[in-house]
Amino acid sequence: MQAIFEPILTEIPLVEEKLKAVAEADFPELAQLLGHVLRREGKRIRPALTLLAGKFHHYNLELLIPMAAAIELFHTATLVHDDTIDNSATRRGLPTLSSIWGSEVAVLAGDYLFAKSADLVATTGNLRVITLFAQTLMTICSGQLEENFSACDPEQSRQQYYDRSGKKTASLFSAAAESGAILSQAPEEAVQALKSYGYNLGLAFQIVDDILDFTAGEEELGKPVAGDLLQGVLTLPAILFMEQHPEDNPIQEMLAGKDEEANLKRAIESIRNSPIIGESYGIAQDFSAQACHALEVLPDSPPRRALLQLADYVIQRQR
Amino acid sequence: MQAIFEPILTEIPLVEEKLKAVAEADFPELAQLLGHVLRREGKRIRPALTLLAGKFHHYNLELLIPMAAAIELFHTATLVHDDTIDNSATRRGLPTLSSIWGSEVAVLAGDYLFAKSADLVATTGNLRVITLFAQTLMTICSGQLEENFSACDPEQSRQQYYDRSGKKTASLFSAAAESGAILSQAPEEAVQALKSYGYNLGLAFQIVDDILDFTAGEEELGKPVAGDLLQGVLTLPAILFMEQHPEDNPIQEMLAGKDEEANLKRAIESIRNSPIIGESYGIAQDFSAQACHALEVLPDSPPRRALLQLADYVIQRQR
Repeated sequence: MQAIFEPILTEIPLVEEKLKAVAEADFPELAQLLGHVLRREGKRIRPALTLLAGKFHHYNLELLIPMAAAIELFHTATLVHDDTIDNSATRRGLPTLSSIWGSEVAVLAGDYLFAKSADLVATTGNLRVITLFAQTLMTICSGQLEENFSACDPEQSRQQYYDRSGKKTASLFSAAAESGAILSQAPEEAVQALKSYGYNLGLAFQIVDDILDFTAGEEELGKPVAGDLLQGVLTLPAILFMEQHPEDNPIQEMLAGKDEEANLKRAIESIRNSPIIGESYGIAQDFSAQACHALEVLPDSPPRRALLQLADYVIQRQR
Repeated sequence: MQAIFEPILTEIPLVEEKLKAVAEADFPELAQLLGHVLRREGKRIRPALTLLAGKFHHYNLELLIPMAAAIELFHTATLVHDDTIDNSATRRGLPTLSSIWGSEVAVLAGDYLFAKSADLVATTGNLRVITLFAQTLMTICSGQLEENFSACDPEQSRQQYYDRSGKKTASLFSAAAESGAILSQAPEEAVQALKSYGYNLGLAFQIVDDILDFTAGEEELGKPVAGDLLQGVLTLPAILFMEQHPEDNPIQEMLAGKDEEANLKRAIESIRNSPIIGESYGIAQDFSAQACHALEVLPDSPPRRALLQLADYVIQRQR
């Protein structure tokens, strides 16, 4: 991780400052709850993407810092709404907003964060980026709704999973990189390269998330193992398992409502002890390689090397 | 109402078309639920405001139609989240999104509508309007959160109520009018006049809403009488009642958790049969008059006459 952040070591604290300033809201309770969500230190992969993508041409921090902060804020807003929807008690070891203040406050706080992120993006004065930002939120919501509507449907293909993950997760990685490129006045070829890098990186990231959901322990995850499957959401490992056992299998039984707990356990065990985990990693690796391939049009340089390392990290990470 | 819409009779259907197009989403379930919320025909006061405010200078429908549609969409998004938060079963006689599809879907659909409205605003290419739009959402959320945090607090002044209502309701009326003025390239004096008109109109509108919440029957309201008070939210009539009965009164008893149902009934009866309703109407009338006063810098014309009538309508309306 350190190597990835090397080219932007002085900039990341400026992003943190911008985020901290968001919490200085106009009444104390709002300031307190914004402080709570923004204190939570994530990995800051998405703002790093914006900054690194901005390094290839006119690196203008006046535009890139608010943009990177907006991307992180926007991500935080989606997490606040996700946690509210899922009724999650904790995230990364800290109690969620909804568990402390209730879901009413959490929905409104998420809305506030969306608005604040849009406000930050508007300060760039760049209409292409402003439009990209609004459309990315539409895409993410659409992906999440699709996931919601397809839950418990046993007839799901890999392609549907890639499309959904592309909307739900990869679109924000893609927008983070693309906006950095646009704001640094990169030529269109470079914009498209960085956009494609971000999208494929995001897909690899989501697949690894979905693998860890099966392989990690409840403690590392901070939530139940195979939590998605528990809610009827089929991710890549589950879809591969269904493909390979088209006749009867515990997931099908589970989705049909038969002996859910025992079948969930059987499904987790079967997937863990099958080549499916390795196959899923292979697919994530392919997307990561495609991400790196997209960068070939850019000159070898510290930010390019950092992005290549990020593509590696996304596969290696354990949480 | 007809007189108000007279100057924009041909334009309102264009706004409706834009709204209908929003429902043509990329997968059938999303299209269905967007169709459900957008079908619900509101009074369309806010988009009318944008169009009428745009009539004083360069009336450019290429900009004003998407802006007016964005304002209505944005308003719809806040209603979807409000209904979800309040667990409301119906709105204007139709089942709410959350009551049909559940709160997860409703939160995401609201987010989608916010994003789509931001996308529409971006098509105007006007940075001032884009920023105004983002900041208005921040203001509204902040006002709703303030209302939430101050619930059940007996120490609330009229000023706090005006500030909160200003954020929660008047800010969108204000933004609707201001954006119409900005997009028609009105001189700054006219922009400020229309903004001030919108703000004062919004306050009058909210006060009348809060009066009707006490005076109307459950059937007309489509929700319980004094629903706000039931949730501990003090609106103008309740605050005036507290002012006039500083010693013991049923609202104080209720907020303290004593015999809530009986005290709520007593409070409703006392307010209905007191001069407070008249006084509240008087205050709404004052704001409506201030709204009209702000328009004095604009030339007498059909749109100005329509706005003056709208200021009257807002006071007269029975629902």
